[in-house]
Amino acid sequence: MKFCSHCGSGALAFRVPDGDTRPRYVCGNCGTIHYENPRIVTGTLPVWNDQVLLCRRAIEPRYGLWTLPAGFLENGEPVEAGAARETEEEACARVADLSLYTVISVLHVHQVHMMFRARLVDLEFAPGTESLEVRLFREAEIPWETIAFRTIARSLRNFFLDRLDNRWPLHISTIHRGSVRRGD
Amino acid sequence: MKFCSHCGSGALAFRVPDGDTRPRYVCGNCGTIHYENPRIVTGTLPVWNDQVLLCRRAIEPRYGLWTLPAGFLENGEPVEAGAARETEEEACARVADLSLYTVISVLHVHQVHMMFRARLVDLEFAPGTESLEVRLFREAEIPWETIAFRTIARSLRNFFLDRLDNRWPLHISTIHRGSVRRGD
Repeated sequence: MKFCSHCGSGALAFRVPDGDTRPRYVCGNCGTIHYENPRIVTGTLPVWNDQVLLCRRAIEPRYGLWTLPAGFLENGEPVEAGAARETEEEACARVADLSLYTVISVLHVHQVHMMFRARLVDLEFAPGTESLEVRLFREAEIPWETIAFRTIARSLRNFFLDRLDNRWPLHISTIHRGSVRRGD
Repeated sequence: MKFCSHCGSGALAFRVPDGDTRPRYVCGNCGTIHYENPRIVTGTLPVWNDQVLLCRRAIEPRYGLWTLPAGFLENGEPVEAGAARETEEEACARVADLSLYTVISVLHVHQVHMMFRARLVDLEFAPGTESLEVRLFREAEIPWETIAFRTIARSLRNFFLDRLDNRWPLHISTIHRGSVRRGD
């Protein structure tokens, strides 16, 4: 943020406004305080029998690596509808019976990832414009070394662990900057 | 948004960018696309034996009405930490054992409300600067006619229903613009 989106002034200061406890961009001309808040990334973990559906990314970041279908929630869109939409866009796949499964606060990128377990409705999937390839994986086939994001690896790990005793608690966790290991 | 926050130009158009499906503010000068996404409101439903803690709002909107402690999630903050912080700020209260309980997409205001059931740790609560009054309520005492927000009334209703059989599923739902009835 270099200019005030309300008045166009370049006199922005990053400071703690009166009565607040955190620094914000404050316009020195019109006084507008510009709040910035985390964004929601929503997606699914589509399940077909003992397999899950992954997409290989056709876009940056992490071009060529594998992920679950997910993306930014849009204004006016319920969280679970956003998850289904991203699944349709990235994997041309239809899912049902969505159940919130992981909520991961990704602090350094100001995101909260909300992933839903879901039932893949049929096998009519295909790469969307943001995917190079879409396919089903059994647990032993998961390409752990080339998973695009730590939130995705974590959700998949939880899934295969919980499947052992068929109990599906909601998993809430946090990822900090730091480790760049994949699969964490 | 009246000016581009990247270059300061007033030549903003609200249109569907190439390759996108939704309208965004696009700068006609520098080409920056300004995405806008829902914000997360996070808070708690603090429980003390058979009572829950409510706050009477000292700020607009809904000045003077009752609510659960909640507010906007900040960048760099885990969702459950934000819920506990808001509880401390609005009710000067400490909570533990947070469990995600309701996730409500509030479409017309571009918010997702995430409320956690929580155990009130002690009775050392008091009004924070944004509250006129903070007190515990038994179910029969809940001021349903003066609850500030529909998400709060819905979370409280779920709570008292689920308490009947001591089962606490996660409740995911949506609120659309339209009904202005309180308590929905």
